[in-house]
Amino acid sequence: MPTSVPRIAALDTYDIRFPTSRERDGSDAMNPDPDYSAAYLVLRTDAPDGPEGHGFTFTIGRGNDVQVAAIDALRHHVVGRSVAELCADPGALSRDLIGDSQLRWLGPEKGVMHMAIGAVVNAVWDLAAKQERKPLWQLLADAEPEWLADQIDYRYIADALTRDEAVAILRRGRNGRTARELDLLARGYPAYTTSPGWLGYSDEKLSRLAREAVADGFTQIKLKVGADLDDDIRRLRAARAAVGPDIRIAVDANQRWNVDEAVTWTTALAEFDPYWIEEPTSPDDVLGHAAIRARVAPVKVATGEHVQNRIVFKQLLQAGAVDVLQLDAARVGGVNENLAILLLAAKFEVPVCPHAGGVGLCELVQHLSMFDYLAVSRTFENRMIEFVDHLHQHFTDPVVIRDGHYTAPRSPGFSARMAAESIARFTYPDGAFWAADRAGAADGTVSGAREAAA
Amino acid sequence: MPTSVPRIAALDTYDIRFPTSRERDGSDAMNPDPDYSAAYLVLRTDAPDGPEGHGFTFTIGRGNDVQVAAIDALRHHVVGRSVAELCADPGALSRDLIGDSQLRWLGPEKGVMHMAIGAVVNAVWDLAAKQERKPLWQLLADAEPEWLADQIDYRYIADALTRDEAVAILRRGRNGRTARELDLLARGYPAYTTSPGWLGYSDEKLSRLAREAVADGFTQIKLKVGADLDDDIRRLRAARAAVGPDIRIAVDANQRWNVDEAVTWTTALAEFDPYWIEEPTSPDDVLGHAAIRARVAPVKVATGEHVQNRIVFKQLLQAGAVDVLQLDAARVGGVNENLAILLLAAKFEVPVCPHAGGVGLCELVQHLSMFDYLAVSRTFENRMIEFVDHLHQHFTDPVVIRDGHYTAPRSPGFSARMAAESIARFTYPDGAFWAADRAGAADGTVSGAREAAA
Repeated sequence: MPTSVPRIAALDTYDIRFPTSRERDGSDAMNPDPDYSAAYLVLRTDAPDGPEGHGFTFTIGRGNDVQVAAIDALRHHVVGRSVAELCADPGALSRDLIGDSQLRWLGPEKGVMHMAIGAVVNAVWDLAAKQERKPLWQLLADAEPEWLADQIDYRYIADALTRDEAVAILRRGRNGRTARELDLLARGYPAYTTSPGWLGYSDEKLSRLAREAVADGFTQIKLKVGADLDDDIRRLRAARAAVGPDIRIAVDANQRWNVDEAVTWTTALAEFDPYWIEEPTSPDDVLGHAAIRARVAPVKVATGEHVQNRIVFKQLLQAGAVDVLQLDAARVGGVNENLAILLLAAKFEVPVCPHAGGVGLCELVQHLSMFDYLAVSRTFENRMIEFVDHLHQHFTDPVVIRDGHYTAPRSPGFSARMAAESIARFTYPDGAFWAADRAGAADGTVSGAREAAA
Repeated sequence: MPTSVPRIAALDTYDIRFPTSRERDGSDAMNPDPDYSAAYLVLRTDAPDGPEGHGFTFTIGRGNDVQVAAIDALRHHVVGRSVAELCADPGALSRDLIGDSQLRWLGPEKGVMHMAIGAVVNAVWDLAAKQERKPLWQLLADAEPEWLADQIDYRYIADALTRDEAVAILRRGRNGRTARELDLLARGYPAYTTSPGWLGYSDEKLSRLAREAVADGFTQIKLKVGADLDDDIRRLRAARAAVGPDIRIAVDANQRWNVDEAVTWTTALAEFDPYWIEEPTSPDDVLGHAAIRARVAPVKVATGEHVQNRIVFKQLLQAGAVDVLQLDAARVGGVNENLAILLLAAKFEVPVCPHAGGVGLCELVQHLSMFDYLAVSRTFENRMIEFVDHLHQHFTDPVVIRDGHYTAPRSPGFSARMAAESIARFTYPDGAFWAADRAGAADGTVSGAREAAA
């Protein structure tokens, strides 16, 4: 169609997989061998020299193709739309995607289809921030409270958060905003690190990395637990010895337990003063988390990286089931739903410490936490973003960690863009890495594995 | 590999779509134009003349290809396995599928990936029942309590149901079993019908179909509500006038409302004595359902067709959030998870009235309810299976409804097999129907639409 208005010309998808399982990076009690992957998309416009929008879902290997297929199924909602209209109101697209009744049947608002919606919505916010020439955290923090409040879908959460309440929280967030922004730009946002604590690492490697984390300025580390109690006691003792009494050690069971097991196991680790127990049981079990929390205090209960949507977060807050809310930038329906979750957390006065790591999750979620600090929670108290030092080199605007803090990104957008050479090399199954890996396997050499380790 | 043991030789998938939206069959407040579809699979073995296993996920159109991709992603777990071992312990496969850590990331245990697991697991049960030359309801009812109890995954539900409790319920179910089987074979299992109540039907059609339902022996009908309150009052008045005071009328909002809206709307319909309000809000909102139930009594609260897994059903029961539990044969992880759900319902003494309709859901779920009657609940009291009179002709063993009851199927298996000609005709996008539809659209005629109505 002839038009003078720039429109979305294409939504291109890519199945990108990194062979992380070969070093046991990312190994935990439920996920022994993840190949960190991304179902990645690019929104291209017909504007010459105009920016693109980038977004993705993080997966851990098999099934990344299913996630790509789900993003492909959303293409017809996006291609042909006016770039200006999309960027002026990403919530309108979000509502269209969630409201596609045929696709909604595949959730609703959960799992593969909902994560696909999140990837597309996040790509639109990336494009919108680039159009405004602002990093996303700044675009969000500069927005009018009423406009931001209208970006939220209150269906199924109105019993806990109304639009009026959202506007009131956001208006309150304007007080002292300038001072906070100067503080954020000077110090960055506090981080904790999970890099020492993967279950597949030796005690020696764990202790060494824990000491390095403290030397690097981190005040909290996290250890994976839940496979074997004796091992966990030994590993936690080693970690506590390495970091001393003043560094917080969080532990993470990755959904391994029933309610009673969670209580027994956490109690057995209490002598090492764990700060929180993360994902003690199924992310779907609101009442289970509430029961565990009542029985393991003063150890805090944290969850959220697998919580499917705002409706389950609402109930975790209503039931008093969590001390720490761990939203994820790419699990729910994108920025719009995470705005709802941040405001719900503020209403219930529960700190948000986002999940990150994976592929690009640090890059994305820092924007949400920085917005939270500037415009919603207005404090760093008991708030930190997870940091894992993997795969950042594949992004064109990788996170910058300085003295245990995320430095505020200055480039326009959502920091979601992958490097062209990484896409070419790690596209599955035909990118250069995977082709060489297959060839190596076929002729009996280990060239593929060697290249992976390089 | 050379072998004398029959093995699974192939898992073949099919994207099958019926153009039901053209008659507004199946229309409700959230789903105005469903094209009832199935992501269908066939397990073929290398045994000459041996039976096949059939299974499927029901969807409503767009995204059926995503669901097929998810089933394809499970193929490597099934192909090559011994038929005898699979059929002797479907729970082992179920655990392998749910435990695939990379695929689990896409849920866990919810949405597209979990429904795919359900389709494969159900196909194995179909094959197992054919090997035993029994309809599935009979295979389940004949099984040893201990073996059946071992088919259940107690992870995340052990705080509400232990294996010992499951065995005790199933042992109790043996008392009076013979008399109940004779009763079932003579009378069938009670049904109610939703055929009159689709939102897209005129008042005249609604009233006519409601009267026909009563004449056909049904004692309960169901109406869709939730789009417009004045319309709902008018339609419910017409339905009540058509069927008189003694026929139960359930109403179904298909997740349309927030908590307060659900209460207000249900209260406004109370003068017409609705039996239950179904899906008043999000299936994820356990606490919301509990709040609604407390405020709309004596109208009962029902939900379940979109409840993602046993963990959410557990909480609905723990929270006292439902009067009626509506499991679905193809939403959760297959027969094994539905065994858990039936036993949870028995433990909490909540009647199960399954969701059905769609494509083949009546065919599947009758087996679960008949097993429930014979071996778990031991009663028909306040228990009915939904019936919708659509698309049964596409199955080789369609349900038989007689005097408002499902007749117990006698053919071996899970009644899941689609007719070869239906598969050929409605495979999307290249089956005969869809090809003709495209050709009709291309040359401006309505041949496709005419063929659809035929």
